[in-house]
Amino acid sequence: MNFASDNWAGASPRVLDALRRAAEGIAPAYGQDETTQALARRLSTLFEREVAVFLTPTGTATNALALAALCPPNGAVLAHEEAHVIADEYGAPEFFGQGTRLIGMPGVGGKIDIAAIEAAFDRLPAAGSRQPTPAALTLTQASECGGVYSVPEVQALAAAAKARGLAVHMDGARFANAVAALKCTPAEITWKAGVDALSFGGTKNGALMAEAVVFFDPALARDFDWRRRRGGHVVSKARLISAQFLALLEDGHWLDLARHANAMAARLAEGLRTAGHRIPWPTQANEVFPVLPRPLIARLQAAGAAFYEWPTQSLAPEDAPEEDEALVRLVTSFATTPAEVERFLDAAA
Amino acid sequence: MNFASDNWAGASPRVLDALRRAAEGIAPAYGQDETTQALARRLSTLFEREVAVFLTPTGTATNALALAALCPPNGAVLAHEEAHVIADEYGAPEFFGQGTRLIGMPGVGGKIDIAAIEAAFDRLPAAGSRQPTPAALTLTQASECGGVYSVPEVQALAAAAKARGLAVHMDGARFANAVAALKCTPAEITWKAGVDALSFGGTKNGALMAEAVVFFDPALARDFDWRRRRGGHVVSKARLISAQFLALLEDGHWLDLARHANAMAARLAEGLRTAGHRIPWPTQANEVFPVLPRPLIARLQAAGAAFYEWPTQSLAPEDAPEEDEALVRLVTSFATTPAEVERFLDAAA
Amino acid sequence: MNFASDNWAGASPRVLDALRRAAEGIAPAYGQDETTQALARRLSTLFEREVAVFLTPTGTATNALALAALCPPNGAVLAHEEAHVIADEYGAPEFFGQGTRLIGMPGVGGKIDIAAIEAAFDRLPAAGSRQPTPAALTLTQASECGGVYSVPEVQALAAAAKARGLAVHMDGARFANAVAALKCTPAEITWKAGVDALSFGGTKNGALMAEAVVFFDPALARDFDWRRRRGGHVVSKARLISAQFLALLEDGHWLDLARHANAMAARLAEGLRTAGHRIPWPTQANEVFPVLPRPLIARLQAAGAAFYEWPTQSLAPEDAPEEDEALVRLVTSFATTPAEVERFLDAAA
Amino acid sequence: MNFASDNWAGASPRVLDALRRAAEGIAPAYGQDETTQALARRLSTLFEREVAVFLTPTGTATNALALAALCPPNGAVLAHEEAHVIADEYGAPEFFGQGTRLIGMPGVGGKIDIAAIEAAFDRLPAAGSRQPTPAALTLTQASECGGVYSVPEVQALAAAAKARGLAVHMDGARFANAVAALKCTPAEITWKAGVDALSFGGTKNGALMAEAVVFFDPALARDFDWRRRRGGHVVSKARLISAQFLALLEDGHWLDLARHANAMAARLAEGLRTAGHRIPWPTQANEVFPVLPRPLIARLQAAGAAFYEWPTQSLAPEDAPEEDEALVRLVTSFATTPAEVERFLDAAA
Repeated sequence: MNFASDNWAGASPRVLDALRRAAEGIAPAYGQDETTQALARRLSTLFEREVAVFLTPTGTATNALALAALCPPNGAVLAHEEAHVIADEYGAPEFFGQGTRLIGMPGVGGKIDIAAIEAAFDRLPAAGSRQPTPAALTLTQASECGGVYSVPEVQALAAAAKARGLAVHMDGARFANAVAALKCTPAEITWKAGVDALSFGGTKNGALMAEAVVFFDPALARDFDWRRRRGGHVVSKARLISAQFLALLEDGHWLDLARHANAMAARLAEGLRTAGHRIPWPTQANEVFPVLPRPLIARLQAAGAAFYEWPTQSLAPEDAPEEDEALVRLVTSFATTPAEVERFLDAAA
Repeated sequence: MNFASDNWAGASPRVLDALRRAAEGIAPAYGQDETTQALARRLSTLFEREVAVFLTPTGTATNALALAALCPPNGAVLAHEEAHVIADEYGAPEFFGQGTRLIGMPGVGGKIDIAAIEAAFDRLPAAGSRQPTPAALTLTQASECGGVYSVPEVQALAAAAKARGLAVHMDGARFANAVAALKCTPAEITWKAGVDALSFGGTKNGALMAEAVVFFDPALARDFDWRRRRGGHVVSKARLISAQFLALLEDGHWLDLARHANAMAARLAEGLRTAGHRIPWPTQANEVFPVLPRPLIARLQAAGAAFYEWPTQSLAPEDAPEEDEALVRLVTSFATTPAEVERFLDAAA
Repeated sequence: MNFASDNWAGASPRVLDALRRAAEGIAPAYGQDETTQALARRLSTLFEREVAVFLTPTGTATNALALAALCPPNGAVLAHEEAHVIADEYGAPEFFGQGTRLIGMPGVGGKIDIAAIEAAFDRLPAAGSRQPTPAALTLTQASECGGVYSVPEVQALAAAAKARGLAVHMDGARFANAVAALKCTPAEITWKAGVDALSFGGTKNGALMAEAVVFFDPALARDFDWRRRRGGHVVSKARLISAQFLALLEDGHWLDLARHANAMAARLAEGLRTAGHRIPWPTQANEVFPVLPRPLIARLQAAGAAFYEWPTQSLAPEDAPEEDEALVRLVTSFATTPAEVERFLDAAA
Repeated sequence: MNFASDNWAGASPRVLDALRRAAEGIAPAYGQDETTQALARRLSTLFEREVAVFLTPTGTATNALALAALCPPNGAVLAHEEAHVIADEYGAPEFFGQGTRLIGMPGVGGKIDIAAIEAAFDRLPAAGSRQPTPAALTLTQASECGGVYSVPEVQALAAAAKARGLAVHMDGARFANAVAALKCTPAEITWKAGVDALSFGGTKNGALMAEAVVFFDPALARDFDWRRRRGGHVVSKARLISAQFLALLEDGHWLDLARHANAMAARLAEGLRTAGHRIPWPTQANEVFPVLPRPLIARLQAAGAAFYEWPTQSLAPEDAPEEDEALVRLVTSFATTPAEVERFLDAAA
């Protein structure tokens, strides 16, 4: 019963098959191979415009390099206060940006509140200031807390950002889950809504390892390739990553996998609610955040369920756990089985 | 007929099988999995002492992070003037070291000359200088030019370095080829000879992607894990890399693959010499550097042979190509077939 | 009527005389001169122990270099949310620390609240975290908002920091004003209270330009001199700065100047309060923060008074300005005259 | 008898007077003052075009910040192999450039050989390379070895650089000495000859401390001010530096001082040559590099002469010192007296 993380899973069989096929024969290294070039074309088709694509080995590299490319030397980045770039990436954005400042924004369910952004713009340093000045907004889609920004929400946030000259980045480590949930096209939730660059994650979606930065305006990518190479982020046998991405994108496999993960999360949420447990944030993608009694948590873990407690800082006060409760995170993936979910719900009943 | 690079090959079938098996089931991410822990134990056994092991996604990351960990803020690195860290890594060592200076050392066949090192120490800035001061020596084993440092050579260079307080790093992107050629133990050519940290490359050896830093004195690795994580260099499904390494190390598979590549290179060198071509640098591992007439080069490429011309800066003057000649590099790998080699030699006759 | 900043003033005549004398004759550069060596001895006497002293050209350099020296690669710095290092130093601490994260702490009057620190330690990432981990605490003495930490307050904050392994830095751009206000010895408010390194500012105190980092434990300064030189922060004619410091320290001139500035501020505060104006934060050094009606502000400026409005984020809600009011900052200096103060108070009456 | 360095001298009396006057009264900080604005206008007049001027506290900061502004992330800098940026600046250019690589160029007398530059362009990595690619050329004027680039020499070097897309920087720590020697206008030897940015040094010329970057194309300075402020390189009482510069520039005082220093060097060179000593490099500014017998060196130092031995790496082989000789550097300044020079020559006879 793995609900600890979607990167605890292995890989979809179709990805593994593609990887094995890609490993055959001989191909130029460092991305000059045909598979990598096919992926670039495939992503331009998927996003309905010419895009610039750069493979990277990790989501942290993807985000940090993209933000460094979008920010001038005095740039600061606005991110949700629980965003991965702030809470889980070991200072990588600051490091690659030569000191970029990250500014945490509040919002329920890991989604930045539009009013908070507006207020921040009134309060935060502007051009000419002695502080790093907001130069980019990053939206985590799906969010760290299981939320999904709707197309109008992204439009509104991006418009507010662009009105002040900020670039807009989307951390899509769980992009597939968001697109599957939104039932929109990838173009609609990205550049058509104002996103300039996307960290497109395949690893949590069903690859062993597949991450990329997608720039919708190739001009923004001017220095990017050097930054990526200088960062030691170009896998020599690049077809390894490209082939996995192509397998995900073939016949909508990526969305099938994401829909499955989302459905497992929805079933978990429904079952937990039925059993009387509170779930403060909406379950919109593949993560469920119930408040559970500590004795139950212990029992579930003893029964073999893997999952983590979660910080409560972004909870509304009325949602805060009682003394003997905790907020926990349950993550589902392409590999989660209905049987696992039912077993968990039985144990939680 | 791929002689362009050993990273144009795919992967050994045993590595692919291991990768597929590793992809099954569920395991903790970021290196907390059992496969990664088994690899750490396996490497301690291989090197005959407790080592600290850190997986990385690329050779460039491996070298740059290791050198950054070995150098204080005022440190410079001595490397062969054709070393990968100087010529092929996009300034990564300078970037991760916050400005580390690289100082090129001469030497035949890509191997630093011990006399050049001694002379450099007399000439180069020492403690109290206004310039970055040598703090680490890096040796590429096997070298960029097909050479292999013998155990006494590493001992002498490391002793000279340590006498001046430098740390010793070994860039082992082709470590397997060197160990196979030397017929020594991994311990003998590393820490027993004075090496403090090794970039252990599995990718060119037969993995799809497997690189690691091995610290022989874990105290030197104090800050390393943070540097690696801050660099975005921790693949979440770490078992992906660990399983490949374990497959290489099982039953000496890594050395079998390297011996094969080395033998293919030796056969190429022998055949080219028989055909009357000069090979200025000794062929000690899996790279051959003949001087070929340009018309022949054109014919070979037309026949489907992939290989690169190579800069001649490190050639002795008497070895320099004539007007209508060029120095070329032929790289063999675990995937090179005897038939390919003979086909190339036939075309070159 | 300059109440805009204490760095709008020129220099004390005694400092100017010393500078002129120092400019005579010939002396070694880069700090090897006798004046600079005399200063080091003088500061060891002043602080009642052997200290390591490093001159720097600006307060920003002083703070950024000191914090970079105190923080390991994964270190974060706790500072008051209105501290100069956060609000006014152009991202220098992040830059020199290769990405150091600054974490703002609340507290009235620009002084970090001990309870906030304790709460932060419970909430903030600790060793092993995926976020930069607090490694240093910096206290601004006197604070940006006119407050002064008492000896017991510094002791308590430093003890809390040290109990978690943090180093303690004091930003003493207005150190003289604080010492003069506290009537304690420089040793008592620094290392005897737990401070590891001090940014000792002479510029606002009456020098043209005199700043230094003082390390109370020279071992902490190991890499510092290189960092300072690499930062381009060593003025070649170092006696220029040293002579100014020595002139300030001679016969307690620095404290005389600071006492004067503090007295001018006290008089301003008393007069404003008498005139019925609110002053939310205590006036403990050389800055006064009254809430004034906007029409009065306009009148004062028309009368030739220079001063700035101040952000209200750290005000208690009950102290917030009304619609037609603003919080302003009035800074006095060694050069402020009683006549200026009275003229201002007359205009404000 | 100070011939150790021109920064061992104090300051011209006119500079000191100006400094004292500037220290009077009250003025805005951080460069918003009238003196600093007058300097910007004065420099635009001096250089016969609109220039962007940024004061800095040290020559090292000036060079490092200017080169960082001129280089993209993959940029390398070509500099004479004995240039201050390589040999004496503690790695500052690499640090501020986030890893900028410096590439040493040969040339007699500290001046880059145009043929060496042309050869380097054939050999060095170009766009698309895996190495940092030359993006800027820096010329030291006057050079570290007492040479001065003529206007046609700067034109030729700058043209060669610009033909390959490099920006051209001039390190003018001794710019006054060069202009005085060349009898040209400041415009002729800078932007009219192809220079994009100048490190304009006033400290060695007769100021206590006055350095600035002058950009001839303000567009190149886009990010510069932030870089400078983030570097902690803005002295708060900026009028301190500006007033010194204005005093130097008034009535050609800077050139008078430089002419004096140059004349003292010429007299030294003439006297030493008459006494039979070799001077391998031409004496074109305020530095003389004789080869002297070691016993004489000892005698001179015993007699109170301060000077340094100098590395011989850039000497032509036929100029190398014999066993019992050494190359020494004698630097003159505005403060050098004819009596000192004659005393030295007497002792050297």
